[in-house]
Amino acid sequence: MSRHAQYRVRVGYVDTDQAGVAHHATYLRWLEQARVEHLREGGLVYREWENATRLGLPVVDVVVRYLGPCRFDEVVVVDTWIGAASRTAIRYDYRLNVEGRPDVVTEAQVRLACVTLDGGPRRVPDEVLRACLGEGFEDKLVTTRRTRRGQ
Amino acid sequence: MSRHAQYRVRVGYVDTDQAGVAHHATYLRWLEQARVEHLREGGLVYREWENATRLGLPVVDVVVRYLGPCRFDEVVVVDTWIGAASRTAIRYDYRLNVEGRPDVVTEAQVRLACVTLDGGPRRVPDEVLRACLGEGFEDKLVTTRRTRRGQ
Amino acid sequence: MSRHAQYRVRVGYVDTDQAGVAHHATYLRWLEQARVEHLREGGLVYREWENATRLGLPVVDVVVRYLGPCRFDEVVVVDTWIGAASRTAIRYDYRLNVEGRPDVVTEAQVRLACVTLDGGPRRVPDEVLRACLGEGFEDKLVTTRRTRRGQ
Amino acid sequence: MSRHAQYRVRVGYVDTDQAGVAHHATYLRWLEQARVEHLREGGLVYREWENATRLGLPVVDVVVRYLGPCRFDEVVVVDTWIGAASRTAIRYDYRLNVEGRPDVVTEAQVRLACVTLDGGPRRVPDEVLRACLGEGFEDKLVTTRRTRRGQ
Repeated sequence: MSRHAQYRVRVGYVDTDQAGVAHHATYLRWLEQARVEHLREGGLVYREWENATRLGLPVVDVVVRYLGPCRFDEVVVVDTWIGAASRTAIRYDYRLNVEGRPDVVTEAQVRLACVTLDGGPRRVPDEVLRACLGEGFEDKLVTTRRTRRGQ
Repeated sequence: MSRHAQYRVRVGYVDTDQAGVAHHATYLRWLEQARVEHLREGGLVYREWENATRLGLPVVDVVVRYLGPCRFDEVVVVDTWIGAASRTAIRYDYRLNVEGRPDVVTEAQVRLACVTLDGGPRRVPDEVLRACLGEGFEDKLVTTRRTRRGQ
Repeated sequence: MSRHAQYRVRVGYVDTDQAGVAHHATYLRWLEQARVEHLREGGLVYREWENATRLGLPVVDVVVRYLGPCRFDEVVVVDTWIGAASRTAIRYDYRLNVEGRPDVVTEAQVRLACVTLDGGPRRVPDEVLRACLGEGFEDKLVTTRRTRRGQ
Repeated sequence: MSRHAQYRVRVGYVDTDQAGVAHHATYLRWLEQARVEHLREGGLVYREWENATRLGLPVVDVVVRYLGPCRFDEVVVVDTWIGAASRTAIRYDYRLNVEGRPDVVTEAQVRLACVTLDGGPRRVPDEVLRACLGEGFEDKLVTTRRTRRGQ
């Protein structure tokens, strides 16, 4: 139902740790960039939107399940879609696999709120919801409570 | 009940992003170092243990709730304790505040498993559980299922 | 004379700092990945080479001149070539600009040595020099001293 | 002559790469924090100064020589002092060793300029030069050209 975007990123040497796998903190970089690209494909350039509105979409919570490792020079495919969205929160859902391997290596959920640049809460504007959910987004909104994980 | 450790870290300029706050991925660095220090205070030097046993404690899932920002040059206090531990998983729980401010800025849970260096699963060894839970750790273990969040 | 490679990378939000520009440490990530891609285009997959030979090419020195900033969501083009190579060191030279802007934002030089995995020095193998300099690489080598900056 | 400051930092797991040593980009984080602490010991709290003046001290060039590795859980001592300062640039010099080992693992030089928040060049203000060089700083200034490396 919700539009998917695939963001591809190659694991760098700097992303590895001495256990020989991508460090678990690196994934949050990838999830962030995947959101930027998902919004771009939905018609919203985050940088321009932030500059024009002086609003932001900070992360309010993350859940990441690491099911298997990925390694230096592998290409990670970050499949990204909107899990749920309301007027006060947007939940991005993710499934990551390594290019050419079908098994899911990571699943994640990242919830964003909308704030002014000095941190005051705001309702998520129409242009963001439209980029996330498409035309007719009003009919796809859920209550805020239902943007929470597992609901 | 469980032993707490407090890890203090100063927010660096590199940790900030253009929204003027510490980037959400940075927190995973702090949570990791807080685990290393919690284990050290419990008598286990992670580096030596990893070298001696060729085992590791990879992160299998994380949950982070960002309740408020922290900023450049603030000192973050990472309060760390064992939320639950079993023979197959250890869950670290965290509460973060900025030194001198009582409000909690972040809460987190990080679950670790035990593996050999090539990734094969292992039971969590006694010396790790003892460092986490102290003497008499056997009586404090839960079933693996109960190391999951919210249970 | 030397083969050039262009590595393109988009500045992420995580790469910025509170001054609103890409943090100066981020550039070293980009320079590293540009080397991996330069070698790949020269026929050497670094990951496979490292696995097969148990050798590495650690950075021994870096010089970076930041001539102007780059910002979130800009695409940085990392122009990469071999500045000088000998049997004991390879110097990568770089010029970075923002896509669509002609001015150079950064210049850099990174010198690599060759070591075994436990750190012992080794001569740079033929397959690496061939990937860097092409066939007939023997005629393009300089003395080690001449891999140093400004010489 | 110039005041030295020692900044101590423990190498984190996240700082390592799959070669089992601290990644070369990590050092720039440490050098930055060492500058913040050097200024603090000289009486200038960078955060407050930046907020009050809306000026900044961006990095204009870096030179780093990696003489030996440092590893997970080692404590790195970053010895920091002013190599040269003028009205238009400050050069920080560094020598890094691992606590308890006398050999120098890294040497570095980082040159800063002074700019307004929108990037326009400014003369380095007195309060910064005083924090760097102490009272009587006017007599210790060099010409800008002499802040360059090797001069």
